Amino acid sequence: MSYKLKKNFKMFTLNSNSELATEMAELLGCDLGKCSVTQFSDGEIQINIEESVRGSEVFVVQSTSDPANEHIMELLIMVDALKRASAKEITVVMPYYSYARQDRKARSREPITAKLIANLLETAGVTRILTVDFHAPQAQGFFDIPVDHLTGIPILADYFKEKALEDIVIVAPHNGGVVRARKLASLLNAPIALIDRRQPTHDVSEIMHIIGNIQGKNAIIIDDLIDTARTITSGANALVEEGAKAVYACCTHSVFSGPAIERIQSSSIKELVVTNTIKLPEEKLIDKISLLSVAPLLSEAIERIHNEKAVSPLFE
Amino acid sequence: MSYKLKKNFKMFTLNSNSELATEMAELLGCDLGKCSVTQFSDGEIQINIEESVRGSEVFVVQSTSDPANEHIMELLIMVDALKRASAKEITVVMPYYSYARQDRKARSREPITAKLIANLLETAGVTRILTVDFHAPQAQGFFDIPVDHLTGIPILADYFKEKALEDIVIVAPHNGGVVRARKLASLLNAPIALIDRRQPTHDVSEIMHIIGNIQGKNAIIIDDLIDTARTITSGANALVEEGAKAVYACCTHSVFSGPAIERIQSSSIKELVVTNTIKLPEEKLIDKISLLSVAPLLSEAIERIHNEKAVSPLFE
Amino acid sequence: MSYKLKKNFKMFTLNSNSELATEMAELLGCDLGKCSVTQFSDGEIQINIEESVRGSEVFVVQSTSDPANEHIMELLIMVDALKRASAKEITVVMPYYSYARQDRKARSREPITAKLIANLLETAGVTRILTVDFHAPQAQGFFDIPVDHLTGIPILADYFKEKALEDIVIVAPHNGGVVRARKLASLLNAPIALIDRRQPTHDVSEIMHIIGNIQGKNAIIIDDLIDTARTITSGANALVEEGAKAVYACCTHSVFSGPAIERIQSSSIKELVVTNTIKLPEEKLIDKISLLSVAPLLSEAIERIHNEKAVSPLFE
Amino acid sequence: MSYKLKKNFKMFTLNSNSELATEMAELLGCDLGKCSVTQFSDGEIQINIEESVRGSEVFVVQSTSDPANEHIMELLIMVDALKRASAKEITVVMPYYSYARQDRKARSREPITAKLIANLLETAGVTRILTVDFHAPQAQGFFDIPVDHLTGIPILADYFKEKALEDIVIVAPHNGGVVRARKLASLLNAPIALIDRRQPTHDVSEIMHIIGNIQGKNAIIIDDLIDTARTITSGANALVEEGAKAVYACCTHSVFSGPAIERIQSSSIKELVVTNTIKLPEEKLIDKISLLSVAPLLSEAIERIHNEKAVSPLFE
Amino acid sequence: MSYKLKKNFKMFTLNSNSELATEMAELLGCDLGKCSVTQFSDGEIQINIEESVRGSEVFVVQSTSDPANEHIMELLIMVDALKRASAKEITVVMPYYSYARQDRKARSREPITAKLIANLLETAGVTRILTVDFHAPQAQGFFDIPVDHLTGIPILADYFKEKALEDIVIVAPHNGGVVRARKLASLLNAPIALIDRRQPTHDVSEIMHIIGNIQGKNAIIIDDLIDTARTITSGANALVEEGAKAVYACCTHSVFSGPAIERIQSSSIKELVVTNTIKLPEEKLIDKISLLSVAPLLSEAIERIHNEKAVSPLFE
Amino acid sequence: MSYKLKKNFKMFTLNSNSELATEMAELLGCDLGKCSVTQFSDGEIQINIEESVRGSEVFVVQSTSDPANEHIMELLIMVDALKRASAKEITVVMPYYSYARQDRKARSREPITAKLIANLLETAGVTRILTVDFHAPQAQGFFDIPVDHLTGIPILADYFKEKALEDIVIVAPHNGGVVRARKLASLLNAPIALIDRRQPTHDVSEIMHIIGNIQGKNAIIIDDLIDTARTITSGANALVEEGAKAVYACCTHSVFSGPAIERIQSSSIKELVVTNTIKLPEEKLIDKISLLSVAPLLSEAIERIHNEKAVSPLFE
Repeated sequence: MSYKLKKNFKMFTLNSNSELATEMAELLGCDLGKCSVTQFSDGEIQINIEESVRGSEVFVVQSTSDPANEHIMELLIMVDALKRASAKEITVVMPYYSYARQDRKARSREPITAKLIANLLETAGVTRILTVDFHAPQAQGFFDIPVDHLTGIPILADYFKEKALEDIVIVAPHNGGVVRARKLASLLNAPIALIDRRQPTHDVSEIMHIIGNIQGKNAIIIDDLIDTARTITSGANALVEEGAKAVYACCTHSVFSGPAIERIQSSSIKELVVTNTIKLPEEKLIDKISLLSVAPLLSEAIERIHNEKAVSPLFE
Repeated sequence: MSYKLKKNFKMFTLNSNSELATEMAELLGCDLGKCSVTQFSDGEIQINIEESVRGSEVFVVQSTSDPANEHIMELLIMVDALKRASAKEITVVMPYYSYARQDRKARSREPITAKLIANLLETAGVTRILTVDFHAPQAQGFFDIPVDHLTGIPILADYFKEKALEDIVIVAPHNGGVVRARKLASLLNAPIALIDRRQPTHDVSEIMHIIGNIQGKNAIIIDDLIDTARTITSGANALVEEGAKAVYACCTHSVFSGPAIERIQSSSIKELVVTNTIKLPEEKLIDKISLLSVAPLLSEAIERIHNEKAVSPLFE
Repeated sequence: MSYKLKKNFKMFTLNSNSELATEMAELLGCDLGKCSVTQFSDGEIQINIEESVRGSEVFVVQSTSDPANEHIMELLIMVDALKRASAKEITVVMPYYSYARQDRKARSREPITAKLIANLLETAGVTRILTVDFHAPQAQGFFDIPVDHLTGIPILADYFKEKALEDIVIVAPHNGGVVRARKLASLLNAPIALIDRRQPTHDVSEIMHIIGNIQGKNAIIIDDLIDTARTITSGANALVEEGAKAVYACCTHSVFSGPAIERIQSSSIKELVVTNTIKLPEEKLIDKISLLSVAPLLSEAIERIHNEKAVSPLFE
Repeated sequence: MSYKLKKNFKMFTLNSNSELATEMAELLGCDLGKCSVTQFSDGEIQINIEESVRGSEVFVVQSTSDPANEHIMELLIMVDALKRASAKEITVVMPYYSYARQDRKARSREPITAKLIANLLETAGVTRILTVDFHAPQAQGFFDIPVDHLTGIPILADYFKEKALEDIVIVAPHNGGVVRARKLASLLNAPIALIDRRQPTHDVSEIMHIIGNIQGKNAIIIDDLIDTARTITSGANALVEEGAKAVYACCTHSVFSGPAIERIQSSSIKELVVTNTIKLPEEKLIDKISLLSVAPLLSEAIERIHNEKAVSPLFE
Repeated sequence: MSYKLKKNFKMFTLNSNSELATEMAELLGCDLGKCSVTQFSDGEIQINIEESVRGSEVFVVQSTSDPANEHIMELLIMVDALKRASAKEITVVMPYYSYARQDRKARSREPITAKLIANLLETAGVTRILTVDFHAPQAQGFFDIPVDHLTGIPILADYFKEKALEDIVIVAPHNGGVVRARKLASLLNAPIALIDRRQPTHDVSEIMHIIGNIQGKNAIIIDDLIDTARTITSGANALVEEGAKAVYACCTHSVFSGPAIERIQSSSIKELVVTNTIKLPEEKLIDKISLLSVAPLLSEAIERIHNEKAVSPLFE
Repeated sequence: MSYKLKKNFKMFTLNSNSELATEMAELLGCDLGKCSVTQFSDGEIQINIEESVRGSEVFVVQSTSDPANEHIMELLIMVDALKRASAKEITVVMPYYSYARQDRKARSREPITAKLIANLLETAGVTRILTVDFHAPQAQGFFDIPVDHLTGIPILADYFKEKALEDIVIVAPHNGGVVRARKLASLLNAPIALIDRRQPTHDVSEIMHIIGNIQGKNAIIIDDLIDTARTITSGANALVEEGAKAVYACCTHSVFSGPAIERIQSSSIKELVVTNTIKLPEEKLIDKISLLSVAPLLSEAIERIHNEKAVSPLFE
């Protein structure tokens, strides 16, 4: 496939996931824009955009993965620089949108940080967002600018289709994950099960209960992201204890913080499939983990946005 | 309980649910503000506020139930009038927030009407929202003004506690309802089950599959709202067919449109418990339906807001 | 005449006046965009835009005639959908702008609904308004986006010119209508008269007094809109009583609510000339009424806007 | 009458009409706030507010009369200073609002300066407007902050009532002035007449035609403002020529620019009654002119706003 | 050099410096747009744009020099007219930005008028600013729209290079001018000196103290603007008294208010070099003053902005 | 001194400088509000405000010192939480405002991060800023909310007054620091000198040149902040080499990044006086450094803001 980009197309990457940006640039057949993003010894970020962006349609690639706050500020400062440098359009390509779980007040006096960040991005001057698998799809409504919201689930589904496991069941690892499990299940023509969790009181540990039939089946747990991996590994172990034949897991965003890798390694999970919305450092790419790329998906979306073609074929 | 309201307290009701507003006014020990809201023969709304609101903390009670568009416009026009008449604070008390299901783009080129309405309310001049059980809690983040978001689930739980049914299971009527079912289940110390629904292709009808154990149990289906009642009644019938002892149902918002009442009447549902966030006309209040009031909850919230006390005790 | 439209031109119609939109599309030589606008049984509106609008210059045709609130909400939701679907420009073609008479606080604590609606439209994402004969031209200033404000008076004038009535006088049916009457009079080279109205006290009925010479003349009453037709028919009857030879009437917007048609039918008005800014249902199109089309005017304006040519020749 | 002002009440005057502000301060029993507003030799304005306004409810008195642009900038700069100095409320008391006639696009590519100024005032930080007799009442809708819009017509009416002229007729000096004439006529229980004006082509002078009965009557012409006095004096002369017994005139705003005084002096106007919304310099206060004060009206309005009492009794 | 402008390019001038605009139009090879900007006898400005600007990229040339307030209002009204007439881009070319010295609160309760004006311009609808030598470069941050900020210092430097004075020293005339002096000094490869000024108490006059070596040298004083010329002439005289061989002076903006010309004439300044950002009337162009044009600089910037080429080569 | 705080006063501290906040709370006689601000293992910040803030006037103390981005995000999230929790006023007390040096575009395509952060703070919901010694005072104009801008220079001056050094000279360490040096010099009744710096070409190192008399004097260098200490230590060494008797230094903000402490230790600086706007860790508080507190200054400002008294006495 060969893409045709107009002269005023520019794509920049910031520091969180330049590997993915480079892969996308190759697919698009373009160079990444020249800019340096460094940090002074006092922690302030300095950005130098080293080529004219006047009148350009700029795409800035930045996942706001760990360190989230650094990556968010990097992005906001870059957008400010682009706006003041007379860029015509500033599309933020954010494969992973951090703070997405802080999308409502679960308790009194909590922030809604996912909305705050949407506001900050609009204030800085972003004119469009391209992202993958929000924690809740309602986050699209946090923006008043257009959001092109892609999903990595078909990529995961294709991988498992090819694997041709027999007798599978898709498992939601917690009560809020059933709709997502249903989506994967429909693509794989499989039934679903659910790990129901509750915490009777604050000082008692969480109780898990498997709902649905997993006996002797190949269970595939799906979540949007895996952070400390507590939920997914405890779920996997429970599935095996309760009679699952084998447990696979998958997610779009491999946050993998704290003890995540250790937990995954020592868990009953046979294989964990993730995408590269977040850059996975070498040492975290253990054997159990299979890595799929969202670069083709994002590149095609960018080309369609740039050439004003419908993006809908990518998610319908 | 007796409430103390300051001199600049005013509560007005619009046309959607004046019964609830009247009940709240009685609980608060105040009169409803004088205003007339009428419709000209060409369909335009005319509002006359018949007492000064200068410097007042105004609460306007309006559910945006059917006819939703009329009720929304009524509310926006009222808020415009209050703002121009120098009200100090304008809190919209919206027990039922319509269009709440249009809270994300499920398909290409859809509106996010729930966010649009949040924007319209802020534009008109609303300074605070008080509401009950959004379809998705993320809708709180659609606003940049404070939202006090209450829940009717404890009211439903209390009713079923008093009923003292034995051997109950709380059932989510569709894949997106498990978190809500879990909340009620925790309050009632019960297990949950799920009605998994999928639609293989566009021309095939939906397939239901019950996940979890409901054999011989008293099933209580819970949803945030019941609209045409197709989902809840088909679920109820399936539960009975699959061996449930009896099926109860409950929800906060009784939208009850189209064939809803007929379906409920002819369904396997033994009792349906709803709250009065939406005014239920006499003819829809069939024997099967039990009606609980949110007036005490809302009144206490209003008093706490007005006197700048924490509202958190009401939902924690 | 043949118009040349660019590839990114799209025109959609909503539900209030699709006949007019269809007529315009024929004149412009384009197809109307595909979208469905339906209402759920609970009164909520659902919009599906069925073709890509990414990068398009979109024109949405919608009069906000009765049911005004439904039509306004339809329009706002459509605009939200278009904005989120990345339309480049969203011009609302609103031949009739409802609530235009609520354009000032005539009494204390009234809303200024015409301004509120301007704010709502801008909030939703409209980038331009094309409209015909505001109730007061000051309403242009309610917007901060460009407004192309056309007038139907020359269309009405041309009709009467062709009729070649002799000895005519143009009559303002109430005190606020003199400037409009003067405009028509200048086009027809005629004198004007005025029906002065006052209401001594609230419980006394309005007193009419004709100012100016109408004896033995063909009187043509003109107003911007006719709603219940009380004003225009009482005026017509008075003119005949006071010696007018015959009474004609005309207006741009045929609101015709409540007893309007009956009043017109039984009045002394010989012929009433209106335009099709509002869709006139078959049963209201009685013999006395002559219907003129604004489609040529609006189509030419749209073509000029689209091709960035001056619109001024259309109203100067 | 004695007013009670809270400790945080402050009233400042700028340079356009400090006499009126001083009169108001006396009526209110308060001192004017200390501030100096001077102009550097390069034309820039310097403002020094010489007392703390932190937390104050500030009223700033400024008519934007000639030199309008200087007075507008003075006002905007003062508001900026007050906002940054932490004033709690900033009410602009603008007895005369200049540019009010530029309130619509009468021709292509005209500004709507009256709306622009409303936007500028809101941007600078004004929280409320108190004004008298806008050129068109629709200008209230140019603001999204509260506007208290008073009228000087009852003051003018009271003056003429006391004069006890017999057989009067109220005359609108041009086609757009009939509603205003009707208001005065209703207060004085009098009939109205109208001076119809039209301009056949650009190079022909305006043609006047009196409509209504003025024979042998005491005619009182009313307008909102008198600028160059061409309209009112040509009208007065025509009335006398056509048989009026005597011609009086009145208006709220005595702009009196260019040849105004000379025209008034040499016209058939017997007495011209104006209010002091604009400061009338000694040399313009010729014998024919009677000057009424709006200070009592504005002072009472200020006290009511400050103490959060309804302002409606002042204009209903 | 020949510039290529697109069809939608339009340049208008307002009244402050039409000579400069004319010079720029000649360099750009374009005509100035037709518009008339007049003042009514009551001081209000009337603007008629006499050609279509629909879809145009408009450049409006206006220095806000004395009378600053008139020129600012002229500009704001013009921008409002352009915005409502559907101009696509509105770039304000403001060679001199008045009120630039009011850019911080030097004392309590002062306005920050330079920021206020930035806000007013954005509110009116400006989409870009092109200006020369702000008093403080931080004023760029007063805007959220792009600012192209040029400097006249190289123009001044080139002039002095050609003069080939020997043994020069660049002098900052007050403590805040050292960075600017350093810039000129670096271009001329010269050392700097500073006139330190302090005011011991309010009733004592300012004390000057020269810091740095100026003995027997050709001193060149530089400032961004010269207003009343008190600072620069007192500095020049002190330099001569302290042993400077000759004193030259230069600035970008020749405000020249009040006694400026007289002071310059009678001072020790041998030659004063200024640019034409502000129109210098014939009578102020005394022999001592040399006038350089910024028209080539501004014209090239406009062409680069219009054709979306980097402006950076002009100031790097 | 004893302060009187109203019931709705709340002061919270975030993580950057809780020692200073604690000192302020003691001076104010209040408790710090309860809230926890922690970081998840994936780098996201979690904030729990543990007491009601409904209707409160909240002061949040946070310097945005290193790690600047973490501290900025902490602050923005806290403000979002407070706004949604119905705080009445949110004053950010930011003793040190990071990124203040990025306050203009020094080169093409740079951001103006200091303005961006002002915009972010206003977007999040801040209603007032209290800060100390901006890098450039123009940064006040980056905000449209009130800014109370205090200065630490008198605190530094008082310290040196008490020291009673003889024959002192105040030295600006670079060309942009002369105004600040003049301020300190005036308070100490001393002359000033300047270290002129220039960089001939990119590959040549900076050249320093001392301007003014420092022979045999006690030199006190002053800057607003010391970051890597390169400028101040190279300046100090040069002063000693050129004959200064001793070199002291002072600044408000001790950023002290990278090799700062090592440079200070090994430099010719005899004593370095700083304030505690930034928390200085134990290991950086070397013997040469004297630490002064801004807590009394900030506390008094807070009390004055809270009780709506003029803050001006603190800096005039």
